[in-house]
Amino acid sequence: MSKGRVEAFSDGVFAVAATLLIFNVQIDKTAPGELLGALLAAWPKYAVYVASFLTIGVIWMNHHGLFERIFHLDRTLVFLNLLLLMAIVFLPFSTAQLGANIQVPRDANTVASLYAINASVIAIFFGAVWTYALTHPRLLVADLDRLAAFRAWPRFSVGTVVYLACIPLAQISPIAVVVVCAALAIYYMFERLPDISRQPAAGTRPHS
Amino acid sequence: MSKGRVEAFSDGVFAVAATLLIFNVQIDKTAPGELLGALLAAWPKYAVYVASFLTIGVIWMNHHGLFERIFHLDRTLVFLNLLLLMAIVFLPFSTAQLGANIQVPRDANTVASLYAINASVIAIFFGAVWTYALTHPRLLVADLDRLAAFRAWPRFSVGTVVYLACIPLAQISPIAVVVVCAALAIYYMFERLPDISRQPAAGTRPHS
Amino acid sequence: MSKGRVEAFSDGVFAVAATLLIFNVQIDKTAPGELLGALLAAWPKYAVYVASFLTIGVIWMNHHGLFERIFHLDRTLVFLNLLLLMAIVFLPFSTAQLGANIQVPRDANTVASLYAINASVIAIFFGAVWTYALTHPRLLVADLDRLAAFRAWPRFSVGTVVYLACIPLAQISPIAVVVVCAALAIYYMFERLPDISRQPAAGTRPHS
Amino acid sequence: MSKGRVEAFSDGVFAVAATLLIFNVQIDKTAPGELLGALLAAWPKYAVYVASFLTIGVIWMNHHGLFERIFHLDRTLVFLNLLLLMAIVFLPFSTAQLGANIQVPRDANTVASLYAINASVIAIFFGAVWTYALTHPRLLVADLDRLAAFRAWPRFSVGTVVYLACIPLAQISPIAVVVVCAALAIYYMFERLPDISRQPAAGTRPHS
Repeated sequence: MSKGRVEAFSDGVFAVAATLLIFNVQIDKTAPGELLGALLAAWPKYAVYVASFLTIGVIWMNHHGLFERIFHLDRTLVFLNLLLLMAIVFLPFSTAQLGANIQVPRDANTVASLYAINASVIAIFFGAVWTYALTHPRLLVADLDRLAAFRAWPRFSVGTVVYLACIPLAQISPIAVVVVCAALAIYYMFERLPDISRQPAAGTRPHS
Repeated sequence: MSKGRVEAFSDGVFAVAATLLIFNVQIDKTAPGELLGALLAAWPKYAVYVASFLTIGVIWMNHHGLFERIFHLDRTLVFLNLLLLMAIVFLPFSTAQLGANIQVPRDANTVASLYAINASVIAIFFGAVWTYALTHPRLLVADLDRLAAFRAWPRFSVGTVVYLACIPLAQISPIAVVVVCAALAIYYMFERLPDISRQPAAGTRPHS
Repeated sequence: MSKGRVEAFSDGVFAVAATLLIFNVQIDKTAPGELLGALLAAWPKYAVYVASFLTIGVIWMNHHGLFERIFHLDRTLVFLNLLLLMAIVFLPFSTAQLGANIQVPRDANTVASLYAINASVIAIFFGAVWTYALTHPRLLVADLDRLAAFRAWPRFSVGTVVYLACIPLAQISPIAVVVVCAALAIYYMFERLPDISRQPAAGTRPHS
Repeated sequence: MSKGRVEAFSDGVFAVAATLLIFNVQIDKTAPGELLGALLAAWPKYAVYVASFLTIGVIWMNHHGLFERIFHLDRTLVFLNLLLLMAIVFLPFSTAQLGANIQVPRDANTVASLYAINASVIAIFFGAVWTYALTHPRLLVADLDRLAAFRAWPRFSVGTVVYLACIPLAQISPIAVVVVCAALAIYYMFERLPDISRQPAAGTRPHS
């Protein structure tokens, strides 16, 4: 499989899934003159939209970082990548449910658990793609420091653990799940995949 | 026609069609506190979502494999490819109908037949693109072993036959259709297009 | 403006607009056991879906053919291209209206006119992009035979005239508009932009 | 981060967001024979569709112009770009609200303010991307005239100021907001980013 088309298809799915999140932001028809109140009351939908958009964005960034280290794709890797995308496309549904029900007693716990399960499945499939690639050196770019990559493994598994911990947390505080997921997205935005190339990265040039 | 833009357009359609599948997963508004039951009762929608996502994913993979063997596209090939895409874009509709009605007596048989017809049409158009390309050698990359490609023909037609057989099967067991389609997708995920190039594939390098 | 990103954005819009057409195919909820009848009664929606998908497909093909002849884009050309895309994105709306109302007396005439107006506007903006490019030689690839391109102008304007003629035709026979539009799409699928390069096209190789 | 995939993801989000705008154009079901009136009465939806499509189009054009000047992306720049995309994807929601309520007293003012706030946030994030890039020379292409770029800063900030001014303007005249936003889009379509390269741009060739 050529890397280019796998990336193009993945980027397309990421972009569409992120854009479809806006459909979770909807306002029921109001009596004339009462729209302002309805727009303000919809704040959980905006919060969930931001959390999910950042989550998809950061997965896309790390997907990108992962694929920069991959030289060749076999069928299994493409299949694992498909499963990852399948879990990501599910996020607009979880997000819509969370945004619509986060203020309904009991249902809020249900949907926050659903959201945390969805995020956990994404993290697990992402880990599967990464682990499969690392354990099949012929798929990787030649100059990769695999030991450094393995040492970074625990640091990245922590995300999966946090998402899994959010499943029971949802039964206590649904809002906390949204906050944790948004915070984790921002954390991973800046906690990049370790620089595991032995050579200076392509694209580096002296400061002007 | 340049191959690049045909692939870009096709990848876009595949990615959007796969992502739109999530719209089939919708829950009717429930009384407060009853969402968990509604989410669990929606399991057929998740099952159909998985079957359709994998189906689109595997068609995309084989589309990709096919286009790697194509060197040049003429208008007829682009037209056949458009018909294939048109059938693929129909799948979110069939999927939504199947997910919504698979537990309704009689309607379940109707929608499972619709789904099988849709899958059959996709398989037939895919076969048409492949057959047209194989019978027009000037469209193919130079180093292709056409005899091997022809010998692989029956093995790939079997998918079309299975989909066609699902149309009457739907009248007996709608669930069986979903299971067969998901199984066929996973089968084709790993039963790749035969390696019909006479030369080592580009991108191969010795294991490190 | 680099041609690559204009093409990527245009391909994205074409792909999404074509895929959104499936949303015009929807069935109202039926009583249990009556879905088959509803699916069969929805045939105008399938017909309109096919006509619109082929229309977008053929515009994409000719857009592609046009951009192969363009070397450089200025702001005006990008703006005209944006207007063209804006008219194309409107097609899912016209299509949905046409599919939903083609059997309602009087409304069928209204929506068929709307559809023909939409198609005419697309044809006019497509012509504007083409005419602007042809009259600004510095935007074109160097080896273009502009005289041949100008001679082909009337042959391509005929599409615009047919679409414009469909606006009053819609008041007589809405179905005829669908048939004419589908036929025109298939005609333009094979009646390609004239080969106006003076040199053999890139990508040509002797038959094997 | 490789520039190519950031551009591909951004182009995907731009294309999908622009295409989803068509969902704001919807007509309530009418009594048979009364569709023409409903289609004509929906004119604010068409006007808002045009204003938003051109706005997204022009942001895409200027995004493109900006990225031509960027050589390398760091995490912060990608994060700022994500925030920009997040604000752009919100526009279909603002647009739908504006189109649906622009003739409802009081609500029209509310939604026009919402629309102006959305446009302001987009402008502010766009400015943030630009300012961050300009103040980090190692991210820029080598031959950039940074002084000229800084001198152009006020001219481009004017858009942000106009959008901010539209927030109170919306309380007086909602229609004026639509007109101003459409006019600003067309203005920015032709008021390009200053030519701040010291060398002739790539892709230039003598007129034929």
